[in-house]
Amino acid sequence: MTVDELKALVRSIPDFPIQGILFRDVTTLIGHGDGFAATVALLAERAQAMGAQALAGIEARGFIFGAAAAARIGLPFVPVRKPGKLPVPVLALDYALEYGTGTLEIDPDAVHTGQRVVVIDDLLATGGTALAATQLLRKAGALVEDTLFVIDLPDLGGGERLRAAGLRVTALMDFPGH
Amino acid sequence: MTVDELKALVRSIPDFPIQGILFRDVTTLIGHGDGFAATVALLAERAQAMGAQALAGIEARGFIFGAAAAARIGLPFVPVRKPGKLPVPVLALDYALEYGTGTLEIDPDAVHTGQRVVVIDDLLATGGTALAATQLLRKAGALVEDTLFVIDLPDLGGGERLRAAGLRVTALMDFPGH
Repeated sequence: MTVDELKALVRSIPDFPIQGILFRDVTTLIGHGDGFAATVALLAERAQAMGAQALAGIEARGFIFGAAAAARIGLPFVPVRKPGKLPVPVLALDYALEYGTGTLEIDPDAVHTGQRVVVIDDLLATGGTALAATQLLRKAGALVEDTLFVIDLPDLGGGERLRAAGLRVTALMDFPGH
Repeated sequence: MTVDELKALVRSIPDFPIQGILFRDVTTLIGHGDGFAATVALLAERAQAMGAQALAGIEARGFIFGAAAAARIGLPFVPVRKPGKLPVPVLALDYALEYGTGTLEIDPDAVHTGQRVVVIDDLLATGGTALAATQLLRKAGALVEDTLFVIDLPDLGGGERLRAAGLRVTALMDFPGH
């Protein structure tokens, strides 16, 4: 399947989660067997080209794409979790979100010093969550230089923000004029 | 890798989430590249043998295994979500949990009438969450006869409970004497 065909599988929902936001919903993409497999194959290929030694996915939609891509190429998967989910002492980071504030947590033993970790999420909007995930993984010793998304909403400035923090940004598709 | 080798990758954490519970933690299994890929391959093989037409995973650890297995065999993945996450009108179900109560939601358009859906989760304990997911998917018209887990804790009775509800129960490994 082409990227344009995959893009056509993304559903657009007006006014979610708040009035005035046109939400790009990947539920319909992952609900299409061939489309989902093709998306995962593309993510895995990009991650391999980046020299990834592990993939980190952000809870919860980042788990869907990140874990599937990791399994496809036999890489460890590192879940970047919401607070209180991990049964071990965690490394945590508070950060500002588009619609409030958030906290992310990881198991510090899930990454090794110098290990090249690529951060995967479904959608790049303002970039706050991906940036926080990167900072958290770096705090645990990982080498994070690449972020990888299914969808980029370039008008929301996330790409610029991540690049300003020294990260490379790759997305399979974008929706300009958001 | 053998199932015994995969089992050795599961970490045991005492007193989580509450005193007296020995928590079986899959973070270490998914953090092992070969171990995670082998686990996903086994799940995918079992799901194919069940005649699955879609795989449903329960948020959030069920996303990690369910989505990866679905992508591997080109099946749609249906996320069974915590409340308030889906941007569309949902089908919802409240249910009793081991440590409280919960609600699960799905997009009713994510499954078709008569579609054979296999429910996947990381761990079978009392079976309450898996049973609720099954009931919700059936409410949306799906044909659910099989549940598939990485780990079964047989002493907690989940298998009996699901079988009493007419479901088949398959797990890659179990930890008796929990």
